Amino acid sequence: MKYGVLGTGDVGRTLAGKLVELGHEVVLGSRTKENERARAWAAEAGARAAAGTFADAAAFGQAVVNGVNGRVALTALEAAGAGNLAGKLLVDVCNPLAFEEGRLRLSPVENDSVGAQIQRAFPDARVVKALNTVNCQVMVDPGLVPGDHQLFICGDDEEAKSATVALVGEFGWPPERVIDLGGIATARCTEMLMPFWITLMQKFGHPFFNYEMRQGSAS
Amino acid sequence: MKYGVLGTGDVGRTLAGKLVELGHEVVLGSRTKENERARAWAAEAGARAAAGTFADAAAFGQAVVNGVNGRVALTALEAAGAGNLAGKLLVDVCNPLAFEEGRLRLSPVENDSVGAQIQRAFPDARVVKALNTVNCQVMVDPGLVPGDHQLFICGDDEEAKSATVALVGEFGWPPERVIDLGGIATARCTEMLMPFWITLMQKFGHPFFNYEMRQGSAS
Repeated sequence: MKYGVLGTGDVGRTLAGKLVELGHEVVLGSRTKENERARAWAAEAGARAAAGTFADAAAFGQAVVNGVNGRVALTALEAAGAGNLAGKLLVDVCNPLAFEEGRLRLSPVENDSVGAQIQRAFPDARVVKALNTVNCQVMVDPGLVPGDHQLFICGDDEEAKSATVALVGEFGWPPERVIDLGGIATARCTEMLMPFWITLMQKFGHPFFNYEMRQGSAS
Repeated sequence: MKYGVLGTGDVGRTLAGKLVELGHEVVLGSRTKENERARAWAAEAGARAAAGTFADAAAFGQAVVNGVNGRVALTALEAAGAGNLAGKLLVDVCNPLAFEEGRLRLSPVENDSVGAQIQRAFPDARVVKALNTVNCQVMVDPGLVPGDHQLFICGDDEEAKSATVALVGEFGWPPERVIDLGGIATARCTEMLMPFWITLMQKFGHPFFNYEMRQGSAS
């Protein structure tokens, strides 16, 4: 498969690297063609890897992965171009976090999410919120954390969700460990886990953890 | 021990009932002395149970449990009286949820929580946020859900948190399954789990589930 991965931070490079490792072709997209981090990544990742603009990456990909920070996701996707996203699976991995007044703040929050904002702004893209509840190393190597911990996906397009289940399956997540929360409106639920996740990371002193949902029944 | 439990809904009655069952004395508090549900509960729960106003309950308790809805918690605690709460453990179990415009909304959210609001409004109470991440039947019977799933506590007073660990220990939660997230400011993290929790409950079709934190390490 051909993938466009947007964002040259840890999330973008980790996902792009894993996709190349799996045999896919990847263009890692950034704001400018001259992004040093993207070019260094592509040089190291080999023949199936290239660097380009957001638009280059989105045009190249049969599917697109949004790994830019949630606060700039809409801007990055505008640059990627609605036409380059139309009809494609757009896996949205971001969380809308930013330091403001010395604190890590989440916005949008509560009755909206960046996942839903993206779907509204790009109605022809097939947006699936996924992977945003774990550290990027865990995203591509779930065995870093013991147990049957899970991922959560949200999206309005059932086929796009099935394709996402297959994609994370390549990363090592079996289908029974991917919980479909419903439409893209439920993305607010997983984005709102971020303050909890960050507090746990600070407490544990590392990001290699995840939630395993346990279910019982009334006695 | 003598407990005051505020709130005659499922949460208040379930917690009050468990405390009586464990041998404690409980006054279940409501807005008015004539609350039918509280009087019926007390009549059924036996000699160690009584019903009264919020103030009666708070005055009676050596520790107080806030089980009213989060949107009316501050009003209920005002009625309970700052003097009746001063110096006491106040276990805050509530979540600030309400139906608004046909949707379940959470407020405060993101940079504040009702747990932190309560601590600010009643600086002499020793507020510990606890138990608000699970259904009330699971609160008092963790074995309803298999696995080593956990509770989370938040509070500024270490002794009050230790007392809370002991209290939930009586409910069946061993200390190693109680994760201390830090000060009362972290209560926002657990209150913000509510949209996720509700979405999971709708998906699973029952409220008998909980999160088991799994931890690994980098490879």
